[in-house]
Amino acid sequence: MKILIAGVGAMGATFGSMLKKNNHDVSFVDTWEDNIKYINEKGINFNNQNHLENISAKVFYPNQYNDRVDLIIVFVKSMQLYNMIKSLNHIIDDNTMVLCMLNGLGHIETLKKYFSEKQILMGVTTLTASTKSAGNFYCTSFGITEIQNLSALSYNKAISVIDILNNCGFNVKYSNNILYSIWKKACINGTMNSLCTILDCNMRTLGKVNGIKVVFRNIISEFSLIAKTQNVDLDIDEITELCYSFTSEDFVGSLHYPSMHQDLIQNSRKTEIDFLNGYVSKMGYLLNIETKYCDTISSIIHAKEQIICKED
Amino acid sequence: MKILIAGVGAMGATFGSMLKKNNHDVSFVDTWEDNIKYINEKGINFNNQNHLENISAKVFYPNQYNDRVDLIIVFVKSMQLYNMIKSLNHIIDDNTMVLCMLNGLGHIETLKKYFSEKQILMGVTTLTASTKSAGNFYCTSFGITEIQNLSALSYNKAISVIDILNNCGFNVKYSNNILYSIWKKACINGTMNSLCTILDCNMRTLGKVNGIKVVFRNIISEFSLIAKTQNVDLDIDEITELCYSFTSEDFVGSLHYPSMHQDLIQNSRKTEIDFLNGYVSKMGYLLNIETKYCDTISSIIHAKEQIICKED
Repeated sequence: MKILIAGVGAMGATFGSMLKKNNHDVSFVDTWEDNIKYINEKGINFNNQNHLENISAKVFYPNQYNDRVDLIIVFVKSMQLYNMIKSLNHIIDDNTMVLCMLNGLGHIETLKKYFSEKQILMGVTTLTASTKSAGNFYCTSFGITEIQNLSALSYNKAISVIDILNNCGFNVKYSNNILYSIWKKACINGTMNSLCTILDCNMRTLGKVNGIKVVFRNIISEFSLIAKTQNVDLDIDEITELCYSFTSEDFVGSLHYPSMHQDLIQNSRKTEIDFLNGYVSKMGYLLNIETKYCDTISSIIHAKEQIICKED
Repeated sequence: MKILIAGVGAMGATFGSMLKKNNHDVSFVDTWEDNIKYINEKGINFNNQNHLENISAKVFYPNQYNDRVDLIIVFVKSMQLYNMIKSLNHIIDDNTMVLCMLNGLGHIETLKKYFSEKQILMGVTTLTASTKSAGNFYCTSFGITEIQNLSALSYNKAISVIDILNNCGFNVKYSNNILYSIWKKACINGTMNSLCTILDCNMRTLGKVNGIKVVFRNIISEFSLIAKTQNVDLDIDEITELCYSFTSEDFVGSLHYPSMHQDLIQNSRKTEIDFLNGYVSKMGYLLNIETKYCDTISSIIHAKEQIICKED
């Protein structure tokens, strides 16, 4: 199976390195100039849970890559997905599969502009990785990944991708309801990420705020209203408790500042709010469903972006 | 007319000094120990628009003040109103008038616990003053003040208080609809104060955020729903435009950080949110009226207070 890693950030470098190490036919495309230069000269430096590895790789700009591949694994920021797929359009044919494990909502709609349902595999991963600098990445934990085919016709394709990844050392399970998992993770990010960013605090501090569970519940209830229109029935109580559990002192990661905080507060970069609360708010508007909590949260994050972010 | 200034902060010092200078019988009570000590030793230092004045005054703790007065003018923080009135209860009789010019909502309910309707005068002032340190205050502008009696029976009382204040150099008008003015000012504070505090910006920056006028409108619409239950019909369009005008480059004061920002962000002190968006949210809950924008804004400010504020 010829695989293209589209986006060589921390996640793309982790998946790409592990596939390459295990002798799979892997190619890379990216759009970050310094990163492309560094990797083409020195390879990918990859700190695999404190074990340093150097994997030689050639990275192309998407529009300069011309080979046919069997599978594209996309690892870009949510807001870059459309442009990445669009710039790979010349290599996509009816048999090209795509695997998308990005956080957030709305990605299936984006993928469907260039792929039919039977070409799409969706995933949710709890693997965590970070970028140190151009060409230098580290993976902090090999958490579980779930993958499922969007169309029943592609069950076998999903299974073979899962097998490949498991043989490379990943921990991947077949999901029976990937849409539920995607929405559930979006609820976690739509509470933790958004609120820790607005309040400039970590998850443990957030959890100590009086009445914060009611705020979680209000947000998750609106996610649930929109999920229902996509035939996903979220268990609001269960997900509220799950979100709250991430703020607990028993959870070491609760001292962590979520990625949206890292983006906006620590690095003055735009956030993925449009793929979380902002998606719920937009769909609410389009479907005439009230989503005032998400409207307010998204407005505040967008306002903060405009006040804080560097000009592009 | 024997007048008691209850609360000798910047506003109390300004009104008290001007009344005393004009030979009115004025007494003072306060609860800030350093302030009481300083004024009792050295008098009130009052910078009256760049003209320094020193007015000798004796300040009592409320529970140590025992004279009957004709009028109590309250100048405390919103959250201190109840305790101040309660601790003056021993000098309040059926003829004691009270004048309340505090920003925010819910004060009439508080006053009615100790006064009948005909004893209450309400006001809204645009006069601005600041505290430099204990005993040291400055008044930056003598804006217009409006005052009205709550009960038609007390029209003459209102007029005589207005006359006294105008003779002391204030700019006071009789209001025909003080409730409208109170709600209108609360809308201004419920947009400018809350949003500049959440976003950590001044009013001009707030105004430059895309779509912020829609956020103003959403908040003001909820204020309007609750105002209507109190027979106050707010003009949502007019007030939205008014709020927006404070963010304009044509308005010098737009570079100003609102008082709530000064309290919470600059001085880690609790805010008056419970008398603005928090009041609307609480009344919405009690009256079964949806106020989700104000719910969210209040929750965020309360959360910020818990994260930022010093322990009392």
